[in-house]
This record gives sequence, C-alpha cells and structure tokens, in this order.
Amino acid sequence: MNVQQLRAEFDALTERYEGFKRQNLALNMARGKPAPEQLDLSAPLLEALPAGSLAPSGRPLDSAGEDTRNYGKLLGIPEARVLMGALLGVPASAATSEVLVGGNSSLTLMYDTVARAVLFGVRGFKPWSRLPGVKFLCPAPGYDRHFAITEGFGIKNIEVPMTPSGPDMDIVERHVQTDPSVKGIWCVPKYSNPQGVTYSDETVRRFAALRPAAGDFRIFWDNAYAVHDLEEPGDELLDLRSACLEAGNPDLYYMFASTSKITFAGGGISALATSPANLTEAAGHLERQSIGPDKVNQLRHVAFLRDLDGIREQMRRHAALIAPKFRVVLSTLERELNGLGIARWTQPRGGYFISFDGLSGTAKRTAELAREAGVVLTGAGATFPYGSDHHDTNIRVAPTYPSLEELAVASELFCVCARKAALEKLR
Amino acid sequence: MNVQQLRAEFDALTERYEGFKRQNLALNMARGKPAPEQLDLSAPLLEALPAGSLAPSGRPLDSAGEDTRNYGKLLGIPEARVLMGALLGVPASAATSEVLVGGNSSLTLMYDTVARAVLFGVRGFKPWSRLPGVKFLCPAPGYDRHFAITEGFGIKNIEVPMTPSGPDMDIVERHVQTDPSVKGIWCVPKYSNPQGVTYSDETVRRFAALRPAAGDFRIFWDNAYAVHDLEEPGDELLDLRSACLEAGNPDLYYMFASTSKITFAGGGISALATSPANLTEAAGHLERQSIGPDKVNQLRHVAFLRDLDGIREQMRRHAALIAPKFRVVLSTLERELNGLGIARWTQPRGGYFISFDGLSGTAKRTAELAREAGVVLTGAGATFPYGSDHHDTNIRVAPTYPSLEELAVASELFCVCARKAALEKLR
Repeated sequence: MNVQQLRAEFDALTERYEGFKRQNLALNMARGKPAPEQLDLSAPLLEALPAGSLAPSGRPLDSAGEDTRNYGKLLGIPEARVLMGALLGVPASAATSEVLVGGNSSLTLMYDTVARAVLFGVRGFKPWSRLPGVKFLCPAPGYDRHFAITEGFGIKNIEVPMTPSGPDMDIVERHVQTDPSVKGIWCVPKYSNPQGVTYSDETVRRFAALRPAAGDFRIFWDNAYAVHDLEEPGDELLDLRSACLEAGNPDLYYMFASTSKITFAGGGISALATSPANLTEAAGHLERQSIGPDKVNQLRHVAFLRDLDGIREQMRRHAALIAPKFRVVLSTLERELNGLGIARWTQPRGGYFISFDGLSGTAKRTAELAREAGVVLTGAGATFPYGSDHHDTNIRVAPTYPSLEELAVASELFCVCARKAALEKLR
Repeated sequence: MNVQQLRAEFDALTERYEGFKRQNLALNMARGKPAPEQLDLSAPLLEALPAGSLAPSGRPLDSAGEDTRNYGKLLGIPEARVLMGALLGVPASAATSEVLVGGNSSLTLMYDTVARAVLFGVRGFKPWSRLPGVKFLCPAPGYDRHFAITEGFGIKNIEVPMTPSGPDMDIVERHVQTDPSVKGIWCVPKYSNPQGVTYSDETVRRFAALRPAAGDFRIFWDNAYAVHDLEEPGDELLDLRSACLEAGNPDLYYMFASTSKITFAGGGISALATSPANLTEAAGHLERQSIGPDKVNQLRHVAFLRDLDGIREQMRRHAALIAPKFRVVLSTLERELNGLGIARWTQPRGGYFISFDGLSGTAKRTAELAREAGVVLTGAGATFPYGSDHHDTNIRVAPTYPSLEELAVASELFCVCARKAALEKLR
C-alpha cells in the first residue's frame, strides 16, 4: 500500500473503532473464567448430598468409615485421593502414598510447596531463603500467577522460549543441568496457558531424564487442563510420573490439578501428586498448618463426578458450551487478519486460551485501544516474567466467559484494535 | 494413712483398674472433637442451598451480585465477612476493611500469618527469618497446635504462667515491653484451652495497652470459643479491638475464629480480623497464594447461620448436648478425687476442655495407665511448649466426643488411674 492507501485504511479502521466505542461495551476477555452456564453444569453440588453417598446412619462417612464432617484426614478422604489421582495419572493403588487433596485452590498448593522449600528446604537441602540466589525457569508466554509466586519469594524468574512441542528443552537442560541455583520450572504441560500447546512425548521424556545440578530441583507440573479438551479425541500427554520412574528420577516432580474448571472455580477441590518421599515431607509441615481440608466438599465432588469417566462426561458438556466460543473468536481473527502479515495466533484443541501475537510493539497499544472501547484483555506483557514482553507482541485471549453474541462483537473490536495499532506503528 | 492402709488402698485400686482393663475399652478423650450428634445439628449444610439464598436466576450470587461459584473475592463474600466479623466483635460497617473469611481451618490462617511474618516481615520490619532469634510467648498450659506453629518456624516458645484471669500480665508486660525479639503471644482469650478461663477485663485492657519493644509485635488472639458457652449467661470477654483502638494501638492484634465447633470441624469456614492496615498487608501476599476461598461454602454458612443470633441459637443446641458430658466428668472427678489432696481441676463454663492437675510427677503415668486400659488422653505435657510440663502434673480432658455412657466409664477409669499413679508416687 502507498501512503494514501494506508491513510484511507487507517481512517476506515478509525471509523469502525469509533462505532464500537459508541456501543458502550463492557466485556471481559482477560481471565480464564468459566461462564455461568458452565457453572450450572455442576448444579448437583448445590443440591443435597445424594443418599448413595451417605452411610446407612445417614451420616456422610468416607470410604474408610470416618466422618467427613469432623477433624482429621490431613491429606483428604481416600475416594477423593483416588479420583484426583486418576486425573493426574496416579493409579488408585498409589493414591494413599502419592496424592494429597486440598481445598478449592491448587494455586495455594503450588504457593505452599514453594513456601516450604523457601522456609525449610527440600529433602534435607538448605532452605532456599538461605541461598544467595535461587532461579526458576518460566516457559513464556506462560501463566502470570505462576511467575508471581516465585517473584513474590524473591526467586529470579528466567524466561525460556516455548516451541510448538513445549519449552525449548535444549535451553531447559542447559540451565537445569549446569546451574545449581536453578531449583524449579513452571509447566502447564497440556493445553498450555496461553498457547494451548501439549508437550510432546519427547519433551516429557527429556523432562523426566533431567540430571539437575541441584538435588532439590523440582518440576512444577500444573496439569490445569488435563481433561479440558475442545475436540475429540483430545491431545494425549505422556505420563510424567511413569516417565520419571523409568528414568530413575522418582522424586523429580510435583503435579497439580484442580476441579476449578471442571466444577466450581470458587468451590472445587485441588490436588498435589508427587513421590511418596516428597509427599511425606510435605505432610510433615502441613500437619502444623491445617487441621485437614474441607472433606465434606471432597465427598460432594466424588458423589457428583464419581470417576475419571464421570469427569470426561462433564468435560464434554463444558466443551459443548465453550468450543463454539473459540470458533467465533478464531473465525473472526481469520476473517479480519488473515493474510495481512500483522498477526499470528494459536488454534488450541483444548484449554482456556488463544495466544495472539501482533506486530512487534503493538500489544500494549492494542489492549489499550480495546480497553478504551470497553473490552478488557489480559494486560499486555502479563504472560511474561516480570510482565515484560520484550517485543510487545503477545496478548492472551480468553473466550470462555462472554456469551457468543458478546464474543462476536468483542473479537471483531479486538481485530480492529490490532489493525489500528499495526497501522499506527507502520505510519 | 499408714503403710498397710496405703497397701490396701493400692490393691483395691489395682483390682478396679484390672476390672476396667477386662472391658477392652476403646475410648478417646484426647482432642476437642465434636460428637456426631453435634455435627448432625448442621444437617442443613448437607442439604440443597435454600431457595432464599439464590438469586432470582436460581444462581448462588453473593450480596454484591457476584457468582460464588466463580473466581474472585479473595477475602470472602461480603455477607460471610459480616457474619464472622460479628463473631469477633467487628461491626458490620468495618467488615470490608477488617475481616477476611477463609477456608475451613483457622489454624491455616494462623500458620500463614506467622509464615508471612517469617518470610516477608510485618509492615516494613525485617522478615523474622533474617533475625538472629525470635520469641513467642506461650501462656501454659495452652493449645499444643499453637505452640507447634511457632516451634516449626524455629521461633523460641517462652512459657508464661496462666492465672484464673488470664496470662500473668506482669510477666507478659516485662517480656513484651523490654525484649524486642518477642514478636507475638498466643492467646485463647475465652474459655481458654485447656482451663476454660475467660480473660478478665483488666487482662484485656493490659493487652491493649502494651507498649511493645518490637514494632512488629502482634497478639495472636484465637477466639476459638467465642460463643461456646456451656451455661447461660456465658462469660463476657472484653472486646480487644475496641480496647486497642482506645489505647491507640489499632494494629496490635490478629483475631481468629472458625465455625469448626459451630458447624462442621471438617467443612466449616474461618476468619481473620485485624486492622485495615494489617489486612491490606496480608491481602497483598494472599493474592499470590490463592484464587479466592470456597465461596459456595461461605454462602451455605450464611444461609444456615444467618447472623449472630442464629449462631447463638445453634450454640444452645450444642450446649444441650455437651453440658451433660462435662457434668458427668466433673461429678466423677468430684466423687472419686475430692478431698484426697492429690488433684485439682477446672470447672469450665464453656469451651471444650477440663484442665486436670494431678500430683507432681504423675501425669505421664496416669495417661499411660489410661491408655493401657483403652482410654486415650491428650499426651501428658502436650499443653506446654515443647511438650515439657516440668512438674508433670497437667492433663487436658476432652469430654465432647464420647457418649454419656462411655464418659461415665472413661472418667471413672481416669480417676482410678490418677489415684493409682499418685499412690505409686507416694509409696
């Protein structure tokens, strides 16, 4: 395009943009929030505990015959440990020694796991608070709340590039195997936040085969989207636990999951799965921190979800609600931006996000334009450690919360903002 | 008694003791556990959320119109903050700035509050982990789980004697006002664990008027038994918050409570109340630790308990179940031990425990004898920092969990054990 054409194009976009502004929109595509209709899928959790989950006495006992309403069971009720273990690939026979089921926030399990390492150290190694410098690897773009945990403890977050098969393992191996101050890595191994990438088998095997320079290095494997397929069949993630056992690295990982996006984001249950030795260590500290988790809610969840098949059924109902939302956003991106050479984006097969990369130096401006027109996006840069996206290109788009109609408008506006920001840059 | 009489007495007791042993008892008076009948009082929490607590849409929205099933509300839903604030003496108008409502374990709120001070420091003061030595005052006998928290962080627990009006305030003042390494004190101000002592107005005022040598000293005020009266009217505890405000010490305290012994020990809600400045500081860290508490359970609790009057009604139902249990134990102690000069015990008007002091050097032996005959008591010494009861006299008796019939047997056996241990000592 020549200068005049660019100007005409810019004026046309500006007119469209002003049209959106006049609509006084108030939409949010910032966070991976389930829509109200998704939450309605778990209505039985608001109903009476079904008779089948009560003992003959009418009391809510767990499978060991203990009262879920009373104190105890620091690591959760047996049937919930089996259920959440299944979600994380732990066989039922190992649930008692490898799975902890906690309250509604798996972020708390992650934070507390890092906090224990900082305060008390991992398996006899020095507490991280007593070391001159501790580093964590942060595949980026990634999940801002992960990066915030380690940043909050004064741990240095090191950016590692993501590839279509997971974190760049050459770089991961170099850091982990040569630098004893590298103590952990944040991973969302299936339908990664925000790209929707599922780590390849080779990536998982290379993780399992790491020979860390630090004996207290751990993989923080947040399998937040373990069953969150948008299409069938969903991606298959190689089982990290088995791979670590095979590689002779049984203690290398902490795996996390929750039902936040299976049942209620504000009333689910969470899990940590790790080796028996790691779990015993965590339980030793947890004993001082808690009188036990909310076991009644664990019983509710088992009564509702039953088993992994029950979870998969529930996830198909979620997919029926949110897959069309992803399609609206993706088809709008396609229609508005394809072939312009100013953007690329991911086509996730699961998870909660689309990762969008605009022209270098336009992400912040795009988000600003959208916000001024009433559409909130994840803060540009938020997907990078310290909020610093060096090229200012990445925006995480979260299509689940708004309605289909709202998404059609919001994603068109988003495209107009991205084009306008690109033209401003090119002028 | 002469030697022969002592021998006869000892033989008679041994015969009674062996009689108990032959009954193969398996009773537990160790922990302050609600009985199943008490848990049944909160049956509505296992039922459907009442229609009155749902929005016209049928969805469980909080009083601000936000969906309790979704993410957010890091400090809890407004109506739960008002309810738990009322329990802790915080006016509804201040709930938003002074009350946090969390998950089911107030112990977790206490642990995390200490952990934040250790890791990050309090209001700009150095993190406790970077100080050469940190001390906490522990009124004793007291609650073993409190002492375990600070012990676990390597904080030095300093024993302070309890009096019938609370901790010995001369000693508290001396430590707090002269030693900058004293950073906190553990208090159960109403129906203290295990004595059942309610701190006098003067004690509370002296707490509020403390002029700590350390700017980051805080009172950890665990009002676990705020409404747990056994008789009416219950004890009145002076409001620490008002007293601190009057004394110009608004930031001096963290107050804690939970519904563990109001609704479900394994499925209740908990609260922290403190000054706006302290709460803002805590929230800043909590933001990294949690995506918000289980708000659905908070809504359930508000629907069931409604307000402070609703809580008081519920507590009268609890008292109707457990006051007779305390009477059985107390009347057995009276019958078996009164006038012998080998024991004294408290007559609590609320709370969960009777504090028993036997002859010096007999507590461990008494607990051992009881255990061998099938009755588990709180480990002798557990009520002191580091489990160390220098005179080996104190045993905490928890009458709530066993049935009345079981308690009659268990408390008689307990007395026989205490007498036998005393005679063994005297011989």
